[in-house]
Amino acid sequence: MTHAPLALSPLVASLGDPAGIGPELIAEAWARRDAERLPPFLVMGGASLLRAAAASRGIDLPVETIADPQEAAAVFPRALPVLGEDDGDWAPGTPSRDGARLALASLDAATRLAVSQCAAAVVTGPIAKARLAEVGFPHPGQTEYVATACGVSAQDAVMMLAGPQLRAVPLTVHVALAEVPSLLTSDLIVRRARVVAAALERDFGLARPRLAIAGLNPHAGEDGKFGDEETRIIAPAVAALREEGIDATGPHPADALFTPRGRARFDVALAMYHDQALIPLKALDFDNGVNVTLGLPIVRTSPDHGTAFDIAGKGVADPGATIAAIRMAGECAARRAVDRNL
Amino acid sequence: MTHAPLALSPLVASLGDPAGIGPELIAEAWARRDAERLPPFLVMGGASLLRAAAASRGIDLPVETIADPQEAAAVFPRALPVLGEDDGDWAPGTPSRDGARLALASLDAATRLAVSQCAAAVVTGPIAKARLAEVGFPHPGQTEYVATACGVSAQDAVMMLAGPQLRAVPLTVHVALAEVPSLLTSDLIVRRARVVAAALERDFGLARPRLAIAGLNPHAGEDGKFGDEETRIIAPAVAALREEGIDATGPHPADALFTPRGRARFDVALAMYHDQALIPLKALDFDNGVNVTLGLPIVRTSPDHGTAFDIAGKGVADPGATIAAIRMAGECAARRAVDRNL
Repeated sequence: MTHAPLALSPLVASLGDPAGIGPELIAEAWARRDAERLPPFLVMGGASLLRAAAASRGIDLPVETIADPQEAAAVFPRALPVLGEDDGDWAPGTPSRDGARLALASLDAATRLAVSQCAAAVVTGPIAKARLAEVGFPHPGQTEYVATACGVSAQDAVMMLAGPQLRAVPLTVHVALAEVPSLLTSDLIVRRARVVAAALERDFGLARPRLAIAGLNPHAGEDGKFGDEETRIIAPAVAALREEGIDATGPHPADALFTPRGRARFDVALAMYHDQALIPLKALDFDNGVNVTLGLPIVRTSPDHGTAFDIAGKGVADPGATIAAIRMAGECAARRAVDRNL
Repeated sequence: MTHAPLALSPLVASLGDPAGIGPELIAEAWARRDAERLPPFLVMGGASLLRAAAASRGIDLPVETIADPQEAAAVFPRALPVLGEDDGDWAPGTPSRDGARLALASLDAATRLAVSQCAAAVVTGPIAKARLAEVGFPHPGQTEYVATACGVSAQDAVMMLAGPQLRAVPLTVHVALAEVPSLLTSDLIVRRARVVAAALERDFGLARPRLAIAGLNPHAGEDGKFGDEETRIIAPAVAALREEGIDATGPHPADALFTPRGRARFDVALAMYHDQALIPLKALDFDNGVNVTLGLPIVRTSPDHGTAFDIAGKGVADPGATIAAIRMAGECAARRAVDRNL
């Protein structure tokens, strides 16, 4: 962990869907703030809801409502700082329209706080996309929402998933596998890889990040024997990136890429499709994955899990990913603050 | 490990390509026979070559040429039993036609020994397919060769990959990813799953094996939102299997399937394509993977790695997969022997 020698703005967390595991995990993270050495964070709304969610885990959560984000750092050691009066009922496992509206209001206000630089980073809690859509949320997910709020094209906001053992970027996401080959272009790979390389340098402190580009086909096509996307699309993209001075390699056979020896040779893997990235990430680091959006003017992270309505309020949800998301947001924000002050 | 109360025939190992890491790993396995509690095995040919390969790892390998497989058990504690006079030069890293011919002769004789029940199982060493093709080998790989030698259709010989943490069967293998959706049928899934269920019961001692069938698309298509193969092909196959009394479940989202919690719920995963099975296997258990052919009248296993010409003779190749393949062959053969004598 990098300790910036500067007084940073606090981080801001959004509640996530109040019927999910988001609020209880924020409470748990605050309760472990010292052991986990977490940076100060405030939550946007939900004071009574957070107390109730905390109680379900046996945590007697002190909450202090604040009026200005700058109060958060002083409050944080003794209580969880909550900004704003928005609140709701705690009904774990029972999502509602009111709950979705509260989740959206919290996300919206938290993101604005980061965009206006009153918060150093935003950590977004898990929402149910279908529920938010019912109350008028027009985006496919929080990544696209945050990009839009920042005035960045969704094409240039890149989702990276990061666990303790692996960072990976899926270049296509929620599309049928049959459509993946037709969606891949050299331009897509190059454009995303540039964002990834710049962000790993700026936010993760890697002087010359090593990008491993996966093949699409088994054995990366074995010289064109099974599929030509490697020779036609991926290899030219790798060549173009290297020409620009980016340390890109590949196309690599995907099964070799994620072995322990394979992982030692890169800082981030660019995967061609959802499961090519998500299978190794979840097999290796299920409880600690962070979803981070690269290429934005703000720092945004999120625990890489859903609302888990089925276990909300039962005291069993693992706080690892939420703690990791808060820690990563703090580290990235600290690096940007140092850069700004150099 | 199951210990059969019967005098078993020995296992037989084929050399693999003599320029690869196969011979040195057989020698290493023999040297560790006591520590690893390995069952007796003989090697088909290559007496001088095995001694030279062993020396490269600092092993002073005693070799005894035998004339009958039944001599192997008595010889095994003091020397590596080698059957037959076939031999060749040891030139690690330099594959040749003579070497490919020797590899083919060893594979052929070892398989015949198992088919004629003079050996309890065959463990095949790694070969280079392109090299064998040059000397007239018409099969895509050893799995298809062994099936043919047993008189079994290649359709009914099912490749399973097994590591300490995961067993997985890829239903399609060396084809372009773009072709996978058109190759999947309910019939293919049902036919392969039946072979898998029967083999896990007979050879692996699982009374009612749990088969987890993966989806093809991200989130297993999320109710048809991204791709319809789950609803059109996979779910009907799962239903048909359950109708037959086979404990099949799915289609499961592939990224959830291979998490620690996911893996605890099945005995074998059926994957829709090569990397869906191979990514988690190699990420979790790179050095100990065994390739086992299910559905044959004989037991056949193989270390799940290639010839690795680049590291042959350098003393660095990991013997874990070879040792695991020998152990698994012995266990499966012991279960069949018990069954035959009940």
